[in-house]
Amino acid sequence: MPVLHMNKGEGETSYAKNSLIQRKIISVGSSLLESTIVNILYEIEPTSMGVADLGCSSGPNSLTVVSQIVNMVQAASHRMGRVVPELRVSLNDLPGNDFNYVFQSYQSSFYGRLFPSHSLHFVHSSSSLHWLSKVPSGLELSVGTHLNKEKLYISKSSPKSVVEAYQQQFHVDFSLFLRSRAKEVIAKGHMVLSFMGRRSPDPCADEACYQWELLARALMSMAIDGLVEKESIDSFNAPYYAPSIEEVQYEVEKEGSFVVNCAEAFEIEWDGGDSSDLKESSGTRVAKTIRAVVEPMMESHFHLGEKMMDELFMRYAKIIDSYRKRFQYINLLISFMRKD
Amino acid sequence: MPVLHMNKGEGETSYAKNSLIQRKIISVGSSLLESTIVNILYEIEPTSMGVADLGCSSGPNSLTVVSQIVNMVQAASHRMGRVVPELRVSLNDLPGNDFNYVFQSYQSSFYGRLFPSHSLHFVHSSSSLHWLSKVPSGLELSVGTHLNKEKLYISKSSPKSVVEAYQQQFHVDFSLFLRSRAKEVIAKGHMVLSFMGRRSPDPCADEACYQWELLARALMSMAIDGLVEKESIDSFNAPYYAPSIEEVQYEVEKEGSFVVNCAEAFEIEWDGGDSSDLKESSGTRVAKTIRAVVEPMMESHFHLGEKMMDELFMRYAKIIDSYRKRFQYINLLISFMRKD
Repeated sequence: MPVLHMNKGEGETSYAKNSLIQRKIISVGSSLLESTIVNILYEIEPTSMGVADLGCSSGPNSLTVVSQIVNMVQAASHRMGRVVPELRVSLNDLPGNDFNYVFQSYQSSFYGRLFPSHSLHFVHSSSSLHWLSKVPSGLELSVGTHLNKEKLYISKSSPKSVVEAYQQQFHVDFSLFLRSRAKEVIAKGHMVLSFMGRRSPDPCADEACYQWELLARALMSMAIDGLVEKESIDSFNAPYYAPSIEEVQYEVEKEGSFVVNCAEAFEIEWDGGDSSDLKESSGTRVAKTIRAVVEPMMESHFHLGEKMMDELFMRYAKIIDSYRKRFQYINLLISFMRKD
Repeated sequence: MPVLHMNKGEGETSYAKNSLIQRKIISVGSSLLESTIVNILYEIEPTSMGVADLGCSSGPNSLTVVSQIVNMVQAASHRMGRVVPELRVSLNDLPGNDFNYVFQSYQSSFYGRLFPSHSLHFVHSSSSLHWLSKVPSGLELSVGTHLNKEKLYISKSSPKSVVEAYQQQFHVDFSLFLRSRAKEVIAKGHMVLSFMGRRSPDPCADEACYQWELLARALMSMAIDGLVEKESIDSFNAPYYAPSIEEVQYEVEKEGSFVVNCAEAFEIEWDGGDSSDLKESSGTRVAKTIRAVVEPMMESHFHLGEKMMDELFMRYAKIIDSYRKRFQYINLLISFMRKD
């Protein structure tokens, strides 16, 4: 039944704008909801409480019941003088539901807690952990005075403080990741994490930075042609960090809950190593893969519009092709075990 | 970080179309993945196994790892001569990720199993369970020979077999719902379900059908004006059923795992009872709430386009206003407890 879903988005005919009746129905049920929640807390005394809302839809009603329940559980637990149980809340609806709209209300990354305590046997993550939870702070000396001029990420010409700011943010994020997963993964449970990194101990090594270096060069060429403001390049910094295995290992030992079972670094070509499609140059293929990943954050900062974005990645492709070589990323593949 | 997400959809610059590198990276990790999964099965022997993929993105890669893991767990369990554990799989990404795209690959309703065994203390559902899992079968005698002519749902003029087909589909769906939740909700856990229903024992009572009756009338008026084909009205049947409390009670007793703690039926006005917005007629407000809910399935069947859809709901609003009365739905609010 792929067509049974409420009208998407928040336009005039959307469900989000036309769900007053369903809201009234929810409000009629709220005292029964409350007495039921109290009853469960009183009778079962759960330490971890599973709650599901089936048919949550998308719009202002989607989180209404769930947030009421959270408040009821907290208030009732306090009244009974009990510890508030861990809440495992599930929202459910048909696959055609506008979940993107529902998720807009959330703001969190995978660095913090996500799952119930001791609930996971295995955690996997691929091509994700090189993204920091935010742009490192301290890259702006004062308003409008940017430390990492003309660059988008750590570069050989970046001041030392820029490198340190990136390293500090990696430390904050990765240690929080380990602490959070340590609570969620059971003893002897495993993690396999794969993300961009580097072999070199130097964070400014080309293998870790060069895709950003060339993208900065493409942007700077547009600044010279008056198509992009130089100041907006100075003020952009990617929330990205490519660590070495040693840096990862250091955080793991410091946190103490996991051991590294095995760790390897392998090369992966910027264009995926696929030369079967001769219609496109290697640079064009690289530009497409990078664009698919960075366009939303670039667009939000540079406000280029579709045409200028095309121009940027055309220049980027040309710069890459001008080297007449195949660049490679270093990807880390690391397996961890949760200690007893 | 609301702007860190891959390019949405499946256009030329989308991540879905440009994620070959990430796929290669996943394939490099697959033998480590396999040995890790086998290790977990061997060392921990889980009966219920929690698995999370962090940063699943949206596109062909999103379900790759998870489906590999499912296959690996099954194959390895068989090799070891063990029962395949219950798998609790979580996909994670940032709120800006195109989850709608990911969910398109799924096809399931809440009637079947959704959650791990004995994992829920409380299930809530509002304004959802009046939707059947599918249009009842048996409403077409032979190809092109439709039983429920000129109607969209059960009507006073519908043949008895139409009513029976709807009742049978409600029975199939609701009993499956109860069996599924019985496995998921722990002893003394509760459900509060609220959905459209009726007080009358007669499934053809106006209180259960009249919104569909008038929508059928609006469509028929468009058929007379040559704007809609009559055959397409004959062949449309809403996947909807408004049961009585007695019908619900009957299914609950037959299934046997739950008891009904309390059940009430209450009126809710078609226009939400809100007359503060004098700019719009009651009928217009009703038409908006109905449109927000039924437009996707109507559009998929009638292919009306935006303008004809506007026309349909304008006619619908006029028909409602012509009665100069406020219609009411009956909504059921029922609380259940899982027996020990």
